Amino acid sequence: MTAITQQFRNGVDTAQMYGTLDAINANPELGVFQFRASNRWLGGAHNRSTIRSFYGAGQEDDSRAEAFSIDAGEPAVLLGVDTGPNPAEALLHALAACLTTTLVYVAAARKVRLTEVESTLEGDMDVRGCLGLSDEVRNGFSRIRVDFKVKGDATPEKLQEIVERAQQRSAVFDMVTNGVPVEVGLVAA
Amino acid sequence: MTAITQQFRNGVDTAQMYGTLDAINANPELGVFQFRASNRWLGGAHNRSTIRSFYGAGQEDDSRAEAFSIDAGEPAVLLGVDTGPNPAEALLHALAACLTTTLVYVAAARKVRLTEVESTLEGDMDVRGCLGLSDEVRNGFSRIRVDFKVKGDATPEKLQEIVERAQQRSAVFDMVTNGVPVEVGLVAA
Repeated sequence: MTAITQQFRNGVDTAQMYGTLDAINANPELGVFQFRASNRWLGGAHNRSTIRSFYGAGQEDDSRAEAFSIDAGEPAVLLGVDTGPNPAEALLHALAACLTTTLVYVAAARKVRLTEVESTLEGDMDVRGCLGLSDEVRNGFSRIRVDFKVKGDATPEKLQEIVERAQQRSAVFDMVTNGVPVEVGLVAA
Repeated sequence: MTAITQQFRNGVDTAQMYGTLDAINANPELGVFQFRASNRWLGGAHNRSTIRSFYGAGQEDDSRAEAFSIDAGEPAVLLGVDTGPNPAEALLHALAACLTTTLVYVAAARKVRLTEVESTLEGDMDVRGCLGLSDEVRNGFSRIRVDFKVKGDATPEKLQEIVERAQQRSAVFDMVTNGVPVEVGLVAA
């Protein structure tokens, strides 16, 4: 019974985790993933992404019974009717979610039981950039601030180590801090 | 009646758009915005962001009647139970949404009436990076491919110009391609 109890830590099946890591280590091709999203414009600042299929672990994944969807919008002051979080806010969500999941997985691997993980994020933007009013400010956030509150069965030093390791391994933290090459194509129908 | 009909283009109130641009041009302080998100861990790879307040146009905005929320998760192969799009997929949504809204606003400003905007996005990732199995691959996507399909009352060349202008002005395209400084703090409670 003790073994079963310890297999799950922070909601993560650690036996599956170690099995996955061993399998990918033995066969690096299993680490090749492709994630996807489709987006459709619904009028004004309203558009919707649909997310379902992906490739990973050597095959097309068909485990998702339904597609996820996320709506985007803008508040009135930015010419929308608030049909969803705006794209910059969605980016903050992606960053928060990735740091959090990475932190939880790292803690599970290091045998630290967490009881609470919360974060607040702020991104500062001078919208004169994206509105085309100034070339002296960038279009996106000039900076992002993330504040974590983490509780668990570990010293503050250990929790700090885990938060630092999460930054070193988070996919979205890497992309948001370092950037990614993006190619954009158009079929004008 | 003609004037009223032409005021709205692509679902954008162009009179409000020009008014907003003039107001920010006259008083650059109105361009200072701060967007925010709060995230809470719900177990394993499940966490949820809540998005509501922001600062902009010289004041705290209180126009949103309710908060938006976005759930994150991971598929089984990445140790989750599919409680939502994963964080990397959420980043693809943020990018798609921002390019789309920017494109729609640019078209409205250039008097081009759009009838359809769709996009598909792919991000390639070797998960050995974020799983801590290899330091030779990055944690995030190595590349992102965005394919737009756009229809509207304009030549293919004009639509291409609009898609290019959207890349030059999109806040999230800027952040994802160029990166943003991110500070992370911790309160270990």
